[in-house]
Amino acid sequence: MTPFWTAPCNKLLRVNFMIKNITKIKIPGFLFSGVSCGIKKNNGKDIGIIFSETPAICAGVFTKNRVKAAPVKLDIKNIKSSFTRAILVNSGNANACTGKKGDKDALYMAETAAEKLGIKSKEVLVASTGVIGNLLPMDKVIPGIEKACEKLNPTGIDDFSHAIMTTDLYQKTAYEKIKIDGKDISIFGVAKGAGMICPNMATLLSFVVTDLCIDKKHLTGCLKDAVNRSYNLITVDTDTSTNDSVIVMANGLAGNKKILNYNKDYENFNTALIKILKKLAKLIVEDGEGATKYITIKVKNAKTKIEAKKIAMSVAKSTLVKTAFFGEDANWGRIICAVGYSGVKVNPDNIDIYIGKIKVASAGSRVEGISEQKLKKILEKKEIAVDIDINQGNCSEEVYASDLSFDYVKVNASYRS
Amino acid sequence: MTPFWTAPCNKLLRVNFMIKNITKIKIPGFLFSGVSCGIKKNNGKDIGIIFSETPAICAGVFTKNRVKAAPVKLDIKNIKSSFTRAILVNSGNANACTGKKGDKDALYMAETAAEKLGIKSKEVLVASTGVIGNLLPMDKVIPGIEKACEKLNPTGIDDFSHAIMTTDLYQKTAYEKIKIDGKDISIFGVAKGAGMICPNMATLLSFVVTDLCIDKKHLTGCLKDAVNRSYNLITVDTDTSTNDSVIVMANGLAGNKKILNYNKDYENFNTALIKILKKLAKLIVEDGEGATKYITIKVKNAKTKIEAKKIAMSVAKSTLVKTAFFGEDANWGRIICAVGYSGVKVNPDNIDIYIGKIKVASAGSRVEGISEQKLKKILEKKEIAVDIDINQGNCSEEVYASDLSFDYVKVNASYRS
Repeated sequence: MTPFWTAPCNKLLRVNFMIKNITKIKIPGFLFSGVSCGIKKNNGKDIGIIFSETPAICAGVFTKNRVKAAPVKLDIKNIKSSFTRAILVNSGNANACTGKKGDKDALYMAETAAEKLGIKSKEVLVASTGVIGNLLPMDKVIPGIEKACEKLNPTGIDDFSHAIMTTDLYQKTAYEKIKIDGKDISIFGVAKGAGMICPNMATLLSFVVTDLCIDKKHLTGCLKDAVNRSYNLITVDTDTSTNDSVIVMANGLAGNKKILNYNKDYENFNTALIKILKKLAKLIVEDGEGATKYITIKVKNAKTKIEAKKIAMSVAKSTLVKTAFFGEDANWGRIICAVGYSGVKVNPDNIDIYIGKIKVASAGSRVEGISEQKLKKILEKKEIAVDIDINQGNCSEEVYASDLSFDYVKVNASYRS
Repeated sequence: MTPFWTAPCNKLLRVNFMIKNITKIKIPGFLFSGVSCGIKKNNGKDIGIIFSETPAICAGVFTKNRVKAAPVKLDIKNIKSSFTRAILVNSGNANACTGKKGDKDALYMAETAAEKLGIKSKEVLVASTGVIGNLLPMDKVIPGIEKACEKLNPTGIDDFSHAIMTTDLYQKTAYEKIKIDGKDISIFGVAKGAGMICPNMATLLSFVVTDLCIDKKHLTGCLKDAVNRSYNLITVDTDTSTNDSVIVMANGLAGNKKILNYNKDYENFNTALIKILKKLAKLIVEDGEGATKYITIKVKNAKTKIEAKKIAMSVAKSTLVKTAFFGEDANWGRIICAVGYSGVKVNPDNIDIYIGKIKVASAGSRVEGISEQKLKKILEKKEIAVDIDINQGNCSEEVYASDLSFDYVKVNASYRS
């Protein structure tokens, strides 16, 4: 048998998780496009636009990194306006750490789209993703924006979702139809991820559009909650990017009674939004740079939900745990070690650990007589569940991580070149 | 040219940093030994003892991980006794997460050595390193301890330093001779590291012996200070182990006036101890699992020293930064990104970044017209210096990190097997 590290990493690919008939999906009142303008070397699509034909309510969650990309700084300002009409995205260049020129470029991008679409500049949000520290090739970007505006159409979702990709191997989309107040509500979400994926929002761009009728306050609350229950529970590496942005637009065309309270309708939409963002979050982990395993880490019976998450994230972020899973090695010692340095007061002598259904540690110690054969079968799988029972409370949390493979190093050792 | 990722990783090896004539070095009053008892599969030395012929003062710093190995729990108790006579170490098995049986085993190890050496059990400190979660093979360990006691001799330093190694590729030792109160003082330090290396003490075992005359209080203070300025400034991965222990023994045989104050003599010893631990810390990073680069990250002009360290560690721990250095890629965007999520309030528009002597970012933005050729030459070297100027205060700190290579993944994907 070839030693595992010389073989190509068996990349997780899960196309069955993606939405079908993507080229036929329409969200009432929204137009999409994605074109190539030459930022990417390979001639791939690199400019995308989502346009709302009517004024839409908008909410956003942005990176907590103190180093914020120019478009993020612009969006934090623009999102305060009552309505938003367009989201303009480029891939291949993050327009981050680009100084005053970068700020001007982001603004000029918004102005160009606004003029072409006949809307106000402050009604445009801009997002960029790619290499940090390089100025945008504006001579390519501006014609690209004009072209993308011309190509806008109701079935452009597929083009748009390709235009926002960087090292992503496949597009990430999710779609839900629900009933609220007797009306059909469409919700479509798209994301790009792959690298720089860590808490306080996975490094990503994600956009959601819906024809729901809701006010800005409740849309914002709903988004924040949904991000906490999805993107904030995943980790690929431990880097929070300069460009993280999750934006949702709601144009109200479904005609439901406007959601102005935390009522049943709000709950229904909240549930659907969480479902969409969770799906996208899982796709991001599965397509994590070099990922060969999708690991679900559940911490049970912690004192608080926050502590449960802190412990789970400590395990999910450990490079030693991640490399062990890549090597299909049931090294539970590294798991309990990461629990121990999570910063949460735990009693090690109370901790039980399960890999799959097999209890590997009981009361902080090894379980004797485990079938290594059975354990091997679990670890060979693409999806692995780790349950950690803290036995000191009744709060649980579940987080999702990729493993750390040779391909992670390969992808990231030469990203710029 | 072969793509770099197919070539074997060019491991950093720096034997010139190690002490010469190690087999001839003696520290008055101390005996050393290292033997093989069969814990390690390869028949390597796996039991070592340091013995002080006279009662010695002892100080220790132990892991902050809540999951503490059995020997660490024992040592925290035993180190409270007035004198210490022996340090007993095994490699190949960490005796961590081994429950009550593990606690008993650690105690029995101390008792065995004590009986054989004619001292009290509480005068023995025990340290273990290796896989977590397996019970020690006591049928091998006990005869091993007896053999190691028999082999104790004044020039056994080389044997001892081999007996504490796990994935270390070479032994790590440091030796200083200084004058205090007109007397010659010998100080010898030894460490093992390689993996699970992160702040709040790098994952390591490290032992220092000296013939200095000092009281317990000042020895303890001196050790804590020296650990903060050495082992707490390095990172290989981001894992704090269950077994971290740094122990120093001083037997007073040099006959200097006993150090009872923070006087000049204290300062001199403190300086020498820092020098020794820094040397060992650097050796640990250089021998970090899979390390091909030794990266010094200096943060300048931060508001406080603590903030400077926090920023530097955030950069040093970023897997994206580490893989970029492995790939010899001057990706300063990842560096400034890690500064941004360090948790310290920084103004990104004030930050300058240097790689080697080349300024790659000025006021948070790219410096144009950099010679990629010159940059390449810097990045090809084994030692790389990164300077980050925060420009908002006058405090500095320097930390040391390895890169993240294919070999790190290789070593750690199958450590148990």
